[in-house]
Amino acid sequence: MPVFGTLVVVGPGLIGSSVLRRAKARGDLAQRLIAVDSSEQVCARVRELGIADEATTDITTAVAQADCVMLCVPVGAMGAVAATVVPAMKSGAVLTDVGSTKVSVIEAITPSLRADIAYVPAHPMAGTEFSGPDAGLANLFEDRWCLLTPLACTTAQSLHDIRSLWERCGARLREMTPSHHDRVCAIVSHLPHLLAFTICGTADHLAAETRSEVLDFAASGFRDFTRIAASDPIMWRDIFLANKTALLEMLGRFMEDAKAMGRAIEEDDTAYIVSRIEEGRAIRKSLQENRQA
Amino acid sequence: MPVFGTLVVVGPGLIGSSVLRRAKARGDLAQRLIAVDSSEQVCARVRELGIADEATTDITTAVAQADCVMLCVPVGAMGAVAATVVPAMKSGAVLTDVGSTKVSVIEAITPSLRADIAYVPAHPMAGTEFSGPDAGLANLFEDRWCLLTPLACTTAQSLHDIRSLWERCGARLREMTPSHHDRVCAIVSHLPHLLAFTICGTADHLAAETRSEVLDFAASGFRDFTRIAASDPIMWRDIFLANKTALLEMLGRFMEDAKAMGRAIEEDDTAYIVSRIEEGRAIRKSLQENRQA
Ligand SMILES: NC(=O)c1ccc[n+]([C@@H]2O[C@H](COP(=O)([O-])OP(=O)(O)OC[C@H]3O[C@@H](n4cnc5c(N)ncnc54)[C@H](OP(=O)(O)O)[C@@H]3O)[C@@H](O)[C@H]2O)c1
Ligand SMILES: NC(=O)c1ccc[n+]([C@@H]2O[C@H](COP(=O)([O-])OP(=O)(O)OC[C@H]3O[C@@H](n4cnc5c(N)ncnc54)[C@H](OP(=O)(O)O)[C@@H]3O)[C@@H](O)[C@H]2O)c1
Repeated sequence: MPVFGTLVVVGPGLIGSSVLRRAKARGDLAQRLIAVDSSEQVCARVRELGIADEATTDITTAVAQADCVMLCVPVGAMGAVAATVVPAMKSGAVLTDVGSTKVSVIEAITPSLRADIAYVPAHPMAGTEFSGPDAGLANLFEDRWCLLTPLACTTAQSLHDIRSLWERCGARLREMTPSHHDRVCAIVSHLPHLLAFTICGTADHLAAETRSEVLDFAASGFRDFTRIAASDPIMWRDIFLANKTALLEMLGRFMEDAKAMGRAIEEDDTAYIVSRIEEGRAIRKSLQENRQA
Repeated sequence: MPVFGTLVVVGPGLIGSSVLRRAKARGDLAQRLIAVDSSEQVCARVRELGIADEATTDITTAVAQADCVMLCVPVGAMGAVAATVVPAMKSGAVLTDVGSTKVSVIEAITPSLRADIAYVPAHPMAGTEFSGPDAGLANLFEDRWCLLTPLACTTAQSLHDIRSLWERCGARLREMTPSHHDRVCAIVSHLPHLLAFTICGTADHLAAETRSEVLDFAASGFRDFTRIAASDPIMWRDIFLANKTALLEMLGRFMEDAKAMGRAIEEDDTAYIVSRIEEGRAIRKSLQENRQA
């Protein structure tokens, strides 16, 4: 039994097209799949890839047919897209999103909500540094967490259905409040990205000669950072601004810790240095036991 | 034609055992391979692995037979090990090391040097987060850089031979001064490791509840950091202290840049945020074109 009759994915990029691929592969996420994108070129590509039954730029006609609309656009665009989508939805349909931040996305969508539409905010914690409809993978969410932050307007049935959808994508589920979600993601994802972008910038600002050698000799340490830093600028700008409060708090804590590490190196405080390095290893070990590494 | 008659690797850990594996696989690095380790257990393991013709704890007897001695111990141990090794070496033999920092390793080894021993400092820029004789890989250095920092006591012949050895390991070679080496490595490798260790510590210091969720939900950003941070504490403590000057300079620059990024987020300076993210992507692209990503 498919979870939904018609599923409309707005924004068939990395995340949206991964859901579509999974839905096509399994057949039991929805009976009918519609992709919506404002670009006719992207729609044409979705058709070529054959990952939706229909791909269209006509957003209101598409969402009017939906039993579930999944918003897979950048977090900064969620509010504007919801303002177009929600008024056109049919009564009793479910709205969900995949935004990487939750408090600000929920605040942006809330003014558009209707009493007869259930809204289930979600965040599948999976991704790559690539974007667009070609980047998607049917197994992107396999064994990854999908965090749900249900609200007052989230009915038990809609929560159950969205849980089923992500379970069928292979994800592991957890529910929490939106603000708790944002703090956890600030430290596990947003701050690491901020640091990776920053160190690439620092390297870039070095004297020209050293810079070209930075490129030549990037050892594994730096290489991993640039992989993180290769992600889409607009998406990350949006995420940083959308999760400003939690991110700046975590950045502040990190800066204190980095200063302390610098001081320990300055003062040859070997015990401090080793204990900090050991902490990193311990966290790594837990991740491995947890099948997340 | 093998480059050397007898090659003695002191410290058959990740790097040392990788050289031994490569030498065994090709046969033309040296005619005879001896591994030296202060632990009988490690020697027994090297024998089991069959990656050397001989494995011994008797360092002076071993190095007395060497045409080349390669020091593959932590940078903080290089001086003490050289003080034992160099007096026992035969006249005309070559001494080399693989330390991740060069200025301080050279300073530590210099007091032990003899006029009839050529010394070629080297740094193969390859590694994994694992250590010990089981961690080595015959192809670890394939397509990776090996930086050479020749000194006044580096004869043309010894430099030629050490170049040949690393070329046969598959490495790409570049020569530079020791201090330039240390600045380049501070930004491409040591600072990224310092940041990775620090963010793991920051996460660990969060309130207990959030910490367990950090472990649960580590998204790809944090996962990559913990992979870097999983490296050996003693090796990295040594590297941080050995390259203190360059590392603290790069940390200072980075902290300024991170503060500026925090300010930009605080003030919604989207142009600044995006330009910083774009820099990261540009560096990534260059690395890919350079076959380093
Ligand atoms: N990538 C990750 O690691 C990851 C992980 C979890 C959650 N997320 C979240 O998933 C969402 C999508 O990310 P993604 O990685 O899939 O990005 P993506 O590959 O760049 O796809 C974004 C999609 O949104 C559309 N779009 C962009 N700006 C828009 C606008 N202003 N109005 C309407 N549509 C717009 C794009 O259409 P065009 O191609 O026509 O511009 C594209 O179809 C974001 O909210 C992100 O926070 C991402
Ligand atoms: N790992 C990397 O990413 C990387 C990359 C390039 C260069 N390097 C450099 O390569 C060298 C070795 O690193 P590695 O990763 O191969 O480390 P490793 O796997 O931990 O091996 C270190 C070796 O040195 C021996 N050793 C440790 N402390 C010693 C001491 N005080 N006196 C004598 N021997 C000692 C160890 O013997 P026991 O096992 O008996 O303790 C072991 O055989 C270091 O100088 C490092 O900076 C490392």
